[in-house]
Amino acid sequence: MFGSMQDWPLTCNKVLDHAARFHKNREIISRSVEGPITRQTYAQTRDRALALAKRLDRYGLRKGDRAATLAWNTVRHMEVWYGLTGIGAVYHTVNPRLFPEQISWIINHAEDRLLFVDLTFVPIVEQIIDQLPLIELVIILTDTGHMPKTSLANCVAYEDWLAESDSDFNWVDVDENDAAGMCYTSGTTGNPKGVVYSHRSNVLHAFQSSLPDMMNLSAKDRVLPVVPLFHANGWALAFSAPLNGATLVLPGALMDGESIYELLSTEKCTFSGAVPTVWLMLIQYMQRNDLYLPDLERVVIGGSACPRSMTKAFRDDYGVEVMHAWGMTELSPIGTICSMKPEYADLEGEAWLDIKETAGHPPFGVEMKIVDDENKELPWNGAAFGRLLVRGPCVTRSYYKLEGEQFVDEEGWFDTGDVATIDEWGYMQITDRSKDVIKSGGEWISSIDLENLAIGHPAVAEAAVIGVKHSKWDERPLLILMLSDEEEATRDEILAYMDGKIAKWWMPDDVVFVDEIPHTATGKIKKVALREQFKDYKLPSDPT
Amino acid sequence: MFGSMQDWPLTCNKVLDHAARFHKNREIISRSVEGPITRQTYAQTRDRALALAKRLDRYGLRKGDRAATLAWNTVRHMEVWYGLTGIGAVYHTVNPRLFPEQISWIINHAEDRLLFVDLTFVPIVEQIIDQLPLIELVIILTDTGHMPKTSLANCVAYEDWLAESDSDFNWVDVDENDAAGMCYTSGTTGNPKGVVYSHRSNVLHAFQSSLPDMMNLSAKDRVLPVVPLFHANGWALAFSAPLNGATLVLPGALMDGESIYELLSTEKCTFSGAVPTVWLMLIQYMQRNDLYLPDLERVVIGGSACPRSMTKAFRDDYGVEVMHAWGMTELSPIGTICSMKPEYADLEGEAWLDIKETAGHPPFGVEMKIVDDENKELPWNGAAFGRLLVRGPCVTRSYYKLEGEQFVDEEGWFDTGDVATIDEWGYMQITDRSKDVIKSGGEWISSIDLENLAIGHPAVAEAAVIGVKHSKWDERPLLILMLSDEEEATRDEILAYMDGKIAKWWMPDDVVFVDEIPHTATGKIKKVALREQFKDYKLPSDPT
Repeated sequence: MFGSMQDWPLTCNKVLDHAARFHKNREIISRSVEGPITRQTYAQTRDRALALAKRLDRYGLRKGDRAATLAWNTVRHMEVWYGLTGIGAVYHTVNPRLFPEQISWIINHAEDRLLFVDLTFVPIVEQIIDQLPLIELVIILTDTGHMPKTSLANCVAYEDWLAESDSDFNWVDVDENDAAGMCYTSGTTGNPKGVVYSHRSNVLHAFQSSLPDMMNLSAKDRVLPVVPLFHANGWALAFSAPLNGATLVLPGALMDGESIYELLSTEKCTFSGAVPTVWLMLIQYMQRNDLYLPDLERVVIGGSACPRSMTKAFRDDYGVEVMHAWGMTELSPIGTICSMKPEYADLEGEAWLDIKETAGHPPFGVEMKIVDDENKELPWNGAAFGRLLVRGPCVTRSYYKLEGEQFVDEEGWFDTGDVATIDEWGYMQITDRSKDVIKSGGEWISSIDLENLAIGHPAVAEAAVIGVKHSKWDERPLLILMLSDEEEATRDEILAYMDGKIAKWWMPDDVVFVDEIPHTATGKIKKVALREQFKDYKLPSDPT
Repeated sequence: MFGSMQDWPLTCNKVLDHAARFHKNREIISRSVEGPITRQTYAQTRDRALALAKRLDRYGLRKGDRAATLAWNTVRHMEVWYGLTGIGAVYHTVNPRLFPEQISWIINHAEDRLLFVDLTFVPIVEQIIDQLPLIELVIILTDTGHMPKTSLANCVAYEDWLAESDSDFNWVDVDENDAAGMCYTSGTTGNPKGVVYSHRSNVLHAFQSSLPDMMNLSAKDRVLPVVPLFHANGWALAFSAPLNGATLVLPGALMDGESIYELLSTEKCTFSGAVPTVWLMLIQYMQRNDLYLPDLERVVIGGSACPRSMTKAFRDDYGVEVMHAWGMTELSPIGTICSMKPEYADLEGEAWLDIKETAGHPPFGVEMKIVDDENKELPWNGAAFGRLLVRGPCVTRSYYKLEGEQFVDEEGWFDTGDVATIDEWGYMQITDRSKDVIKSGGEWISSIDLENLAIGHPAVAEAAVIGVKHSKWDERPLLILMLSDEEEATRDEILAYMDGKIAKWWMPDDVVFVDEIPHTATGKIKKVALREQFKDYKLPSDPT
């Protein structure tokens, strides 16, 4: 027996329809790559997205076809997302900061037919176009007047292309499970893997992440997504903002402290989202110039852990609430956000910061558990840590062209690759990556905790901890340090500094000093390389 | 090409799982029908719902089977909803205020196998049980100690029945489009019609109605649903509160001003929902006793239009924000809620009240338009009024056992039977029911507007306006008045009072005085009876 409810697929374009109808004059304010700040309402944006959909349809792009974007957060990039999904095609955001060979690998793997590119990235495309045999046309996101001199054979100015069309078009009918978007993970090992967002997952994710205890988005909000659209589905703000009729303020190519401050301030933004690095630049800029942001209420911080000092500075110096978040490309992307439940509502000072340091709790629609190596569920006591597994309608079950492989267990749980604790009230805290955790005598030691401790020593510039083979304990921690210029420290000094601050059996078995610690393109420590470098390292504690 | 996202059906029981896992100690506080106020956490409620599901399964209730409830808002009633949906069966709430013959008609039409009943309503069941051949067992929502002497042959105490089971059970897998709940509309004409909620519509509706610009529900909220679970799906608070981890405070059988005040006050409720009558009783009680509710932040008012004076009293005297809402059983049920968009954020005084008098705007997922008699869409200018059509995943397309008939147009729009205006920013205001609007020379006159005007005359106790046949204008308004005891007024005095306050052509063509105006069981004016009574009425203005 079925319900008597209407069959009304959850599709991305209905979100823009809703915004254009019920929030028609609300704006998308956008710093264009050409320079000027532009203003365009949701109603106008819908008209332009419809015109683009019509143009794409006339071009011959079809349902399920992919188109790549190499672009900043601008209103044109948003139009491209909605224009593509409006004919059932798929937006494929590519991170322009990847190495050129990674970009071409990804575009070829996705078999993108079109490439939308910002002026900034035309040189990259010129460099790799010969390696992109499937790209039929490059659409440069500008107008005739700003078209660059280019070696690209098949390219057109976006505004010219769009001008050949009009908004007299109906969105193409799609199934809510049809593909809407794609984003490749930048794994530290192996080839990138393509996560495919469906219309359904984008809409459900917009609901989940908008809830009062999550991003709490309303029509009163003025939202500045610094996080790029090409980073983990842009934290889905391109859907959640219009779903709630929030004003969008898009930063374009400029993400330095001064430029972000200018937009936050002049556009009276109430909400923003970015990685810690961006906020560090903003806070430093405000400190140097004695500036404040009276309209800014809350910032979501994700991508990597938010330092405690930053949460404190935002609260004490700027009256802004930091909402620590955790997510993944595979999760559409929000997994958890840290807001205060009644159990923690009365916390103050350091106790408040302790909770704010966690990644928070998930919305309805994200199931979560932690398990040990035997897949046995671990207790939620804030101390036990295990592999973090998730499940839900916005969690991937596989990757593009890898549908035959198994990426979830028989109960549908997806292994995040993170190691975490969960406390009594469901607040999750990442303690490590599964592959980086050190497995010593059947117990786990967090490499991140050791690194954070070592970095506190005044002579240490950067610290990495890896597990090294040990005949008795299986693995033991090795601490790898880069010292600050002109600083000195010995093995014993470092170990003495750490002693007493952690459990005895967590203490690194040895310390090595290096001139440089290797990093990935996105700035993370390349532990794979370190493990390779130290694979034959002989620990002094090893009896054999 | 499909998305790579997990198949994770939106089912009701996942909502309770989420609450039990992430808000395990948060309570459902419930005034029991036996008297005492009980407290039970979400974790305990899930255990009891699982035990009930196991008991139902052992009994032999199967997926798609229906069970009726005649019950107040208590935690046991919630357990019944979740226990039933947990095995794929269907909760069918029956309004105990209907006439006994309506109740038995509805239960027989739904072919309910079980009947869950509160102590209060056992006499009703005893009276009609002979007319309910399909009811196999009556489960009285109490324990052994409170079991009444009853003539019912097959009945059992809920707590005894539950005690035969335990929570070691897994929810039965269901499709998200499977039926979860049923509620019959109490039409003024014809037989009641059964709306069938799906798991999907209940979950999506919980998302929609929880959004910051809708009910804005969070884990910090303490929610008192005065609106009964049997009224229009209980405004779906039984799903939206646990989805957000909000505390629930359930009023049981007592809905007088004093009892509601007691719960709102001692349980520090922040949010409540009820029809205007309940709020009137509450305000009168508080006024008489000089009481206040410092914790109460907002109340949703629906079911019928909220008087302007009530919105003002809540704001000025009690610091509570009224959120006017409009919905229907057929809409799961919320269609619109009045919150202030940025366009209206700075309004004060009367201008603020003007907007607060509208029913507000819909969440994403409720499409809306107004059309004239030729189905031509009317402008959104706050003046043009036409038939209100809606569309969405929580809007019904048909009714139980009437799937062959056509209840939506070829584009899927459902006619609400209401006549409304919509303003520039999407704020909807009901002006009449379609069948009550007076069609005069191709133009529409709102019967409700005329009634509201006439009621302002000090001698008038109640007013009804119906359209009466007119040879030239097709229909013209007839004003039917019941005067207050010991008051007097003439036709000409009434018309003189109305003159100048409405357009000339809206003026009633005649006034008749009656001793009583007929009402439906739910207190609405029975216009069908009035139209029958005055069907041959000869208007003095009619030339023939």
